Amino acid sequence: MAEKARRHKLTFRPHFKTHQSAEIGSWYKLFDVEKITVSSVSMARYFITNGWKDITIAIPFNILEIADLNSLPTDCIINLVVDNPDTVRAIGIKAINNLGIYIKIMTGYERAGLEYSSVQKIDELIMTINQYRHLKFLGFLTHAGHTYSATSKSEVQNIHYDSLKKLFYLKEYFSPDFPELEISIGDTPSCSISENFMGVTEIRPGNFVFYDLMQHNIGACHIDDIALRIHCPVISKQPLRNEIVIYGGAIHFSKDFIKNTDGKNLYGRVIIKKNDDRELLDSTNYLCRLTQEHGIIRLNPSVFRQIDIGDILEIIPVHACLAAHSMGRFLTSKGAVIEMMPRF
Amino acid sequence: MAEKARRHKLTFRPHFKTHQSAEIGSWYKLFDVEKITVSSVSMARYFITNGWKDITIAIPFNILEIADLNSLPTDCIINLVVDNPDTVRAIGIKAINNLGIYIKIMTGYERAGLEYSSVQKIDELIMTINQYRHLKFLGFLTHAGHTYSATSKSEVQNIHYDSLKKLFYLKEYFSPDFPELEISIGDTPSCSISENFMGVTEIRPGNFVFYDLMQHNIGACHIDDIALRIHCPVISKQPLRNEIVIYGGAIHFSKDFIKNTDGKNLYGRVIIKKNDDRELLDSTNYLCRLTQEHGIIRLNPSVFRQIDIGDILEIIPVHACLAAHSMGRFLTSKGAVIEMMPRF
Repeated sequence: MAEKARRHKLTFRPHFKTHQSAEIGSWYKLFDVEKITVSSVSMARYFITNGWKDITIAIPFNILEIADLNSLPTDCIINLVVDNPDTVRAIGIKAINNLGIYIKIMTGYERAGLEYSSVQKIDELIMTINQYRHLKFLGFLTHAGHTYSATSKSEVQNIHYDSLKKLFYLKEYFSPDFPELEISIGDTPSCSISENFMGVTEIRPGNFVFYDLMQHNIGACHIDDIALRIHCPVISKQPLRNEIVIYGGAIHFSKDFIKNTDGKNLYGRVIIKKNDDRELLDSTNYLCRLTQEHGIIRLNPSVFRQIDIGDILEIIPVHACLAAHSMGRFLTSKGAVIEMMPRF
Repeated sequence: MAEKARRHKLTFRPHFKTHQSAEIGSWYKLFDVEKITVSSVSMARYFITNGWKDITIAIPFNILEIADLNSLPTDCIINLVVDNPDTVRAIGIKAINNLGIYIKIMTGYERAGLEYSSVQKIDELIMTINQYRHLKFLGFLTHAGHTYSATSKSEVQNIHYDSLKKLFYLKEYFSPDFPELEISIGDTPSCSISENFMGVTEIRPGNFVFYDLMQHNIGACHIDDIALRIHCPVISKQPLRNEIVIYGGAIHFSKDFIKNTDGKNLYGRVIIKKNDDRELLDSTNYLCRLTQEHGIIRLNPSVFRQIDIGDILEIIPVHACLAAHSMGRFLTSKGAVIEMMPRF
């Protein structure tokens, strides 16, 4: 991803909410990353403590956290995201330090942001930002999150291109007044699949650090690119149903699912040990149901017979961000512990 | 629930995985509760540290945790749940302390356990247990978790009655050899709704300590009985869609949902402040989508206009167990912090 950003002359500002780990964060420095994205003031503080100095908090800013924001070290560059004048005025009046401000733009993913076509509202919001000396309008930021429900590369390409066109329109419109206007895009599928970044100045993918089954399903990665597994012990065998019960449930995997080749909900794919080798089972041998702490794996009879009580199965999660957040720490393949940001 | 257990002469052994909190656990002592249920060895250890001395670990035992089990204090009564001879043999050989053993029975909820009708297998499993002097067969334990997908009290009653009949059959069959045989049932819907506990000796409900929208949907509680809310700040308003964006997503609520009156997925119901009063909105004004940290609330236009950036909305979660686990601590309505079991 770093190489791709370099090739396209893009600022690479990876989202760190996926791993939430100082140690994994430090690996990015080997690729000359200096700017990062986080999703909360507390996450910004954690990464500042771990040496990062240029951070975008990429969620519409929560004005109840202004005191917390004011207590961040002043030798850092902090950028916020806004989509409404009330938030800007609250920051303008109560925030103490200099802040970069991105306006969140909606290009099709109906979550937060101003509609790209509402140029008058956008113009007014820029003027509101500019009323405050310590706030600096930086440009437009979007997250084309609807690529996550795509099921092919071409669908991602179409969504991405549509998003680029809309942002380019805005860039053209506002460039005369703001020649250094930034365009920041975020989603891992577009950043993984596309080679077209027309008008874009910055990318903020996060999930790609691990990838997962959802990304694989979209076509954003190969199955071998997925770097995360949850290891779960077998605690029950159900021979009448050819099902295995593992300790590993909704509190570990989350309830995000994709469809397997039979059209059934799949919550994870299974790797078993065979002699000294490991084998990824096809998607008809799959994690099919989750309750709080139990997971049910449906297997073909021949596979079922190979698995014993007390075996540890490796499960590839559907959504790496949620699974990593739930598990709270990592083990490397060599058994070293990697801590995440403390949460409680 | 304590009163109901007393009335029906049932042992009340509440499941503590729902709250995972020593302080909330201590409230049960006011109702003379001395026996509890947990879902892991580490949760057993946490509650032992907090003064509990009679604990059932109600998940098919994970034989990889025997060393951990052996390190629990020896002045406690610990009961395990098993459904296969491999687990019994592993415990028989490697566990050091005396253990009570329940056999998990499946009465219709297809997760773990031995099919109730497999009396020969059950008989063999009892004999395997009895080969080990430090293991004591206590009886049969079930969880009729299929009541969670019921949508009426009568459906819960039917499932519960079917489950009781099957357990009664087993009790009759094995009572001649084991006159003190226990029958332990678990699910909150049955324990909340039914007044029929024929043959049952123990109930293990957990969720009822908070209840939630799923339980309300089933008919297990009134909406006013639900004791848990997640407070979420409003971070964006989308007037074109009459939608509010809150900071509060899948990592807080989990992705469990019920259907609202329009048949749409509902992830939470919304309470707003009106002057000094609070108003529960109907289910067409609802938390309708979740991503990792964002929640989208769809509102009727008249309600939409009453809500401002920076307001805090109270959301009633769909599944209290998952929401409590995700949040990691509680605030009482008076603002006191209640800690949960440390996880990471």
